[in-house]
Amino acid sequence: MPLGANSWGKSRVRVSKVLRGDPTDDILDLNVDIQLTASDVDVAHTEGDNRGVLPTDTMRNTVYALAHSRLGNDLEGFATVLCDHFLEREQITSADVTITANRWDRQSDQGFTGGSSEKRIARVVRGSDDRLSAGIEGLVVLKTGGSAFEGFPRDRYTVLPDADDRILATSVTARWDYSSKPADTTAAWDRVRQTLIDSFFSEWSASVQHQGYLMGEAVLAAVPEVERISFQLPNQHHLPFDVTRFGVEDTGTVFYPVPEPYGDIRLTVER
Amino acid sequence: MPLGANSWGKSRVRVSKVLRGDPTDDILDLNVDIQLTASDVDVAHTEGDNRGVLPTDTMRNTVYALAHSRLGNDLEGFATVLCDHFLEREQITSADVTITANRWDRQSDQGFTGGSSEKRIARVVRGSDDRLSAGIEGLVVLKTGGSAFEGFPRDRYTVLPDADDRILATSVTARWDYSSKPADTTAAWDRVRQTLIDSFFSEWSASVQHQGYLMGEAVLAAVPEVERISFQLPNQHHLPFDVTRFGVEDTGTVFYPVPEPYGDIRLTVER
Amino acid sequence: MPLGANSWGKSRVRVSKVLRGDPTDDILDLNVDIQLTASDVDVAHTEGDNRGVLPTDTMRNTVYALAHSRLGNDLEGFATVLCDHFLEREQITSADVTITANRWDRQSDQGFTGGSSEKRIARVVRGSDDRLSAGIEGLVVLKTGGSAFEGFPRDRYTVLPDADDRILATSVTARWDYSSKPADTTAAWDRVRQTLIDSFFSEWSASVQHQGYLMGEAVLAAVPEVERISFQLPNQHHLPFDVTRFGVEDTGTVFYPVPEPYGDIRLTVER
Amino acid sequence: MPLGANSWGKSRVRVSKVLRGDPTDDILDLNVDIQLTASDVDVAHTEGDNRGVLPTDTMRNTVYALAHSRLGNDLEGFATVLCDHFLEREQITSADVTITANRWDRQSDQGFTGGSSEKRIARVVRGSDDRLSAGIEGLVVLKTGGSAFEGFPRDRYTVLPDADDRILATSVTARWDYSSKPADTTAAWDRVRQTLIDSFFSEWSASVQHQGYLMGEAVLAAVPEVERISFQLPNQHHLPFDVTRFGVEDTGTVFYPVPEPYGDIRLTVER
Repeated sequence: MPLGANSWGKSRVRVSKVLRGDPTDDILDLNVDIQLTASDVDVAHTEGDNRGVLPTDTMRNTVYALAHSRLGNDLEGFATVLCDHFLEREQITSADVTITANRWDRQSDQGFTGGSSEKRIARVVRGSDDRLSAGIEGLVVLKTGGSAFEGFPRDRYTVLPDADDRILATSVTARWDYSSKPADTTAAWDRVRQTLIDSFFSEWSASVQHQGYLMGEAVLAAVPEVERISFQLPNQHHLPFDVTRFGVEDTGTVFYPVPEPYGDIRLTVER
Repeated sequence: MPLGANSWGKSRVRVSKVLRGDPTDDILDLNVDIQLTASDVDVAHTEGDNRGVLPTDTMRNTVYALAHSRLGNDLEGFATVLCDHFLEREQITSADVTITANRWDRQSDQGFTGGSSEKRIARVVRGSDDRLSAGIEGLVVLKTGGSAFEGFPRDRYTVLPDADDRILATSVTARWDYSSKPADTTAAWDRVRQTLIDSFFSEWSASVQHQGYLMGEAVLAAVPEVERISFQLPNQHHLPFDVTRFGVEDTGTVFYPVPEPYGDIRLTVER
Repeated sequence: MPLGANSWGKSRVRVSKVLRGDPTDDILDLNVDIQLTASDVDVAHTEGDNRGVLPTDTMRNTVYALAHSRLGNDLEGFATVLCDHFLEREQITSADVTITANRWDRQSDQGFTGGSSEKRIARVVRGSDDRLSAGIEGLVVLKTGGSAFEGFPRDRYTVLPDADDRILATSVTARWDYSSKPADTTAAWDRVRQTLIDSFFSEWSASVQHQGYLMGEAVLAAVPEVERISFQLPNQHHLPFDVTRFGVEDTGTVFYPVPEPYGDIRLTVER
Repeated sequence: MPLGANSWGKSRVRVSKVLRGDPTDDILDLNVDIQLTASDVDVAHTEGDNRGVLPTDTMRNTVYALAHSRLGNDLEGFATVLCDHFLEREQITSADVTITANRWDRQSDQGFTGGSSEKRIARVVRGSDDRLSAGIEGLVVLKTGGSAFEGFPRDRYTVLPDADDRILATSVTARWDYSSKPADTTAAWDRVRQTLIDSFFSEWSASVQHQGYLMGEAVLAAVPEVERISFQLPNQHHLPFDVTRFGVEDTGTVFYPVPEPYGDIRLTVER
């Protein structure tokens, strides 16, 4: 039976890149979707002959390899670079590249808050174990400097290298209890939120745990009614993707934002 | 066999409220979760005797009824009002109310952008039907004035009343084609985005269709390289919830944000 | 500027219908998406003249009204009925209706399990508060008979009518602790799962609370190693949609499956 | 300020394992969540001293390393193995491991359908470009044998090895057009669905493209009213995770199910 329209590609290639400035960095956080058509892939469908089927794994590698030298704020430009690269292969008849960039809003030279569904939480329990608490969910923060993770213990399954400078990104979930109700609960909440942001971006940390403790300490110092604050801080890893195996120079600026698994850090700071 | 810990309630009660100012409105957009425990509901579990089981539908109605007179920016205060209301019923032993507020950022007196996962899109097709286009997804906008919907045709299934003033909310998805590549694609994208926001908040509209057309017209006027722009605009309805049947005065400020179904409006504006 | 392609409609109209048999019922659980084009809506876009804009709310009502007499297992047939209805309006030039049916697998004459992402859970805690527990998530069950809710207390905000027969649907989340590890943990889990299903479909209940208690009792009777079992049971309401206001006969078989809010019932049954 | 309760771990470690039988395989598809507490991590929070902070990356590696020799259907047993492993480190005071298993239903010796939200689609367009079509979404299928991918072209960015036997998994989205309306649309849909399943599990394929073509061919042969059928077939890769670097013997049965990116294969088969 006749084969009709067909194409193949790789979807949701996640790539982030730090555009280093002095002192101001930019961050790109992208999904790349690629679809190709070719003149020699009919037999792949009808007879299982793969001689024309460029692996989608290769398409992914290509994105990371070219991102080092060619990716900047001109996303349409980078999409064109990718299209032209694939079209160099003679049998490829068309390339369709869509780049979807997540939004990050600058908060400091190396600090950004991410597009997300940020929520304010208020919780009241009455009748037994009375409780007045508040919280925030989905406060997405990322910094391109001011964070390390080294000096940790190693066992036979440890391969993680020490990092004295790294991207640190998390989505802050915090809940705090009030010892007494603030006169203005909205103003109190705003102050907690701003303190979390300021602390995350201004204070160097040795780990997510350390960063969380500093944030908690800052909130307790800033808002006297807060009795304790608990955090859940997923470590949204941005890992280097090894391109040196392709003979590409690693510029130290291109990363793979890992969707899962994630480090899952929980702590409480009290008065 | 013994019944252990138990509670019941209503989760994800969606309520929005406009806090009218002059000229500046505020908008609250909340999820309310309620859990109660009671001394007389064991028999509901073990014997099917419902005399103590306040319906969760009643809990929902209570949220809307009390929102008219008691809901303001003090969310913890409103959670306390709800707890206290349920505890008036003698057998209720505890009430646990959590309010989750979606974030809206002010853009004008009556205009807000919503927390969301806003994306910038770049798409390039090469090889056949060459195309250079860009887009935006997840630009969530809401205005508390400056929108109407009336004069529409009616058939036997039509009950919608005319509205000469209403909340208008949508999540803008737009794609536009460039006739030539802008010198700075990021600047061009920023200009389109800002034009969409300015147009939505400054121009009165008679319908989503009308609003979309005005937005498209404004973009084509502002960015000469844009050849055509297509929109998909879900109408995120905020409906009045009838509280007069409970003997409660309707203040015209409390709404039910409907998750589905949604009006689904699509249009293209061209040069 | 010229208006290009345009259409409007309603998306995600949720409708369920019980096809009564004797003794075997069928259940339809649908999303309906509608898009129309018309010859007289250009002015709605360009001038805000709504005389051709059939409200999307009317489209929704139409789905429920026609579902009573015309909806059966022939989904393409019902989509055609809807298209033809809208095309009766002379200016409508095309109608595009897509129906998406959720899958339900029959378990008994009136019992069904739903397509979902069912999970088996195993949890072990060691070192402090040692615990060996198991669980299930996403076991979606629906029955078209054998469930009531009446005799509940009423206050000023209560409008819910008594129901002596209703659709009962939930997504079972259960966690249970083992007092000792079963010889075959997979066989034990399978026995719990089957007991939950059998109990839900065979035992009449006066409420979700009652149904949950009966399920817990059955599990404790069936699997001796289970020490206690806790449930979270969202009540996935299927509500009648009032079509009598359109002069349509209510056949008592068409419902609106409510996505939110939901009754949120939690209980533990112990030995 | 005092540090309160704290713990750390890794969440959503995805691991799949084929339990080889003759001729019947089993498949495990798991998420593992780990949380540890330790006596020597206070200083990590308060002073940035990481000497007690076992990296969460190590926890992930441990899951894959131990899965080779210790993972079977007794999930509680494997959770206990993991807990005990972490508790070997003296300062670890508790380990909490939750395993969440996705459901797969056997269809053949090496074939499974997955828990998902399977949908039946019906679409009718009237008025212009009349169309009667149907479809399926979310038909999740996996086979542990009968699939290869080799003989593909290589460029400088290609590192993928040839595979003459591999896990093949996808979520089938298919849409087909009817040349004439089947007498019984539900029976026709059921026949297409069963043909897709039978073809996927019984026919060896050299690629996703090849598998899709064979499925399309089988549907056109089985249901005469189907004029053409289009597929979108994401390749849900299950990749080996290299444990030999830890001195662990690779049993060839443990895989990492990759959430993204995915190969994205599209094709149409016509009469």
